[in-house]
Amino acid sequence: MPQISNKGQSMPSSPIRKLVPFSDEAKKRGVHVYHLNIGQPDIETPEGARKAVKEFDQKVIAYSHSAGILSCREKLVEYYKSVNINLTPDEIIMTTGGSEAILFAFNSCLDPGDEVIIPEPFYANYNGFAITCGVTVKPIMSTIENGFALPSIEEFEKIITPKTKAIMICNPNNPTGYLYSKEEILKLAEIVKKHDLFLFADEVYREFCYDGVQHFSVMEVPEIAQNVVLLDSVSKRYSACGVRIGAFITHNKDVYATAMKFAQARLSPPTYGQVLTEAAVDTPQAYFDAVINDYVARRNTVVNAINAMPGCMCPMPKGAFYAVARLPIDNSDKFCRWLLEDFNLNGETVMLAPATGFYSTKGKGTNEVRISYCLKVSDLEKAMKCLEAALKVYPGRTC
Amino acid sequence: MPQISNKGQSMPSSPIRKLVPFSDEAKKRGVHVYHLNIGQPDIETPEGARKAVKEFDQKVIAYSHSAGILSCREKLVEYYKSVNINLTPDEIIMTTGGSEAILFAFNSCLDPGDEVIIPEPFYANYNGFAITCGVTVKPIMSTIENGFALPSIEEFEKIITPKTKAIMICNPNNPTGYLYSKEEILKLAEIVKKHDLFLFADEVYREFCYDGVQHFSVMEVPEIAQNVVLLDSVSKRYSACGVRIGAFITHNKDVYATAMKFAQARLSPPTYGQVLTEAAVDTPQAYFDAVINDYVARRNTVVNAINAMPGCMCPMPKGAFYAVARLPIDNSDKFCRWLLEDFNLNGETVMLAPATGFYSTKGKGTNEVRISYCLKVSDLEKAMKCLEAALKVYPGRTC
Repeated sequence: MPQISNKGQSMPSSPIRKLVPFSDEAKKRGVHVYHLNIGQPDIETPEGARKAVKEFDQKVIAYSHSAGILSCREKLVEYYKSVNINLTPDEIIMTTGGSEAILFAFNSCLDPGDEVIIPEPFYANYNGFAITCGVTVKPIMSTIENGFALPSIEEFEKIITPKTKAIMICNPNNPTGYLYSKEEILKLAEIVKKHDLFLFADEVYREFCYDGVQHFSVMEVPEIAQNVVLLDSVSKRYSACGVRIGAFITHNKDVYATAMKFAQARLSPPTYGQVLTEAAVDTPQAYFDAVINDYVARRNTVVNAINAMPGCMCPMPKGAFYAVARLPIDNSDKFCRWLLEDFNLNGETVMLAPATGFYSTKGKGTNEVRISYCLKVSDLEKAMKCLEAALKVYPGRTC
Repeated sequence: MPQISNKGQSMPSSPIRKLVPFSDEAKKRGVHVYHLNIGQPDIETPEGARKAVKEFDQKVIAYSHSAGILSCREKLVEYYKSVNINLTPDEIIMTTGGSEAILFAFNSCLDPGDEVIIPEPFYANYNGFAITCGVTVKPIMSTIENGFALPSIEEFEKIITPKTKAIMICNPNNPTGYLYSKEEILKLAEIVKKHDLFLFADEVYREFCYDGVQHFSVMEVPEIAQNVVLLDSVSKRYSACGVRIGAFITHNKDVYATAMKFAQARLSPPTYGQVLTEAAVDTPQAYFDAVINDYVARRNTVVNAINAMPGCMCPMPKGAFYAVARLPIDNSDKFCRWLLEDFNLNGETVMLAPATGFYSTKGKGTNEVRISYCLKVSDLEKAMKCLEAALKVYPGRTC
């Protein structure tokens, strides 16, 4: 029997999904599970966007342009203008989710063995995409004590080698919810410029900024226009994860032309998703205002509850819908599994993502969990009661 | 300015799309272009399938299971049973088009430097996927004189090396239209078994078999159940190229589990496309009967016309909707471009795909073109008149 590839063997399992069998078991035993492990919003996809799909009347669902339907890219140009990013339609390649945009960026800019620096903890699937492309991730530590702020220029320069070809950020951040300030982005721009690196910026949570703080995009720094690739997605913006529409965006014509070769090889992004996206750009501001209000209430519920638990600590995130909390536990993988296998409070428990999966440095994240606050406040309150009760009786409690 | 990757530089441009700018120019000059270059069927997507999307009423367009919606995979099991392929839902991963299924197969089974043998000419994008994954394509020549039949076992064994890890076929074939017989598939199975190789089979044109000949799938050979990965797509079957739904199928549990890690990293295939696919399985047989009748008439129109042109030769394909023709020309790239730039017959011309892009052996295909017969017969007749007239006056005619 022929053997699978080494690459396949090195691929990590998803930290978000590896506990799913235990959650399924808990449900079979009649225990209700609050899912704070996944970033699947419960928010409705805008009605106007869904209506566009219902009304789509082409009789042949054909391939679209490999960069995406022109009218859809034109509409995206309007959207980006509204968030202070100036583009033309031929600087956008519509992709199958943000995931494909990441693959296009890695494949177009990096060769096997090249290094990309990523502040840690980071979105776990970056590891999978790096292995897929043979790229080496060099983590640079951001710490919970610092609220997960950008490490200093000196820290970056310590790990830059001749193989370093790019820096990658996620802003606002998954898993920490940290929102980089304009000053931090300009600091990054300086490093990128000085060392002639690419800067990949995953800004899929751009809409989710709280407490009146504005998002500042890497696309707003003209000095690094040739260095930047913006990785985007409509999944979170319009709560439309299932349409699988993302975007690969750059002012750099060589990089764009190269990414187009990868785009043409896979023919086109999904047509229905593009139809939904084009209509979604006209979603009224009131939709977002309501969503942001919801998320602020959800965030406050979770973060305040955790900080009130003895031995726990959770920085107040300014963006996205995640938080990383430090808990008084021996091992986050064991704890999260125990929550599903051995614990319930009045027939309820909570599912969290062990933070270990978001670090590539071994041994990090063992006393941290990622919490996704995508549920309504009343559910989050009950989930926090579960967590509080669980921490009191967990056999591996450390203090 | 940071430089693009070597990998990106090696990526080939699509042979189907590189002439598009010249075709656009022709249209600007008022010349009508018959598009025989692309495999985009003009057939309507089944109405019932499109209706399912219109009636889809979920308010949150959420991620689906990474392997695809269970009810959709169950429906696919029914479909495969009807074509004599016996599966369970957990042997299917729904992918974003057949393209992603190919990437999953290469990444799960092959490492950079590993070799995959592919009968040549072959679907041009296999090259792009091989470069993306660092895999080496070893072409094995099938010849127009032989009607593009499978090369002999001896020919295969001549090029098998310790690095050979897989054979890949497309059946019925794009670009040749060749349909492998049961005997040829069994011959392949023998090689695969003897040398412990994977067999990747792209069977996306399974429905398009003509003259009463039955398709015989690699999945019908139990002896190689652990070696086979079936690569499939609904694009051609239901004329639904834009939904981007394919499938990665294997009985090999290790391979499946590995491919699932790549599938989880990209989260899920497109939801709307899965909804359409699930409904499309119930498309009545009458739809396919009508489509097949159309394609037989189209094929006969094109192939008979070409064989009647002096100095031209085109084997009669038994499947898919492509044919490769040998023409009395010096250089197919030049000829195809000349058709768009310098030729017209009463304001009309024809766009063909130079066969060079379907060979990885340099210098092959220079006197061949791929013809996609996806247009209605009356248009194909006019296109053939153009081709005939063009060959009479083409300055690079060789005989």
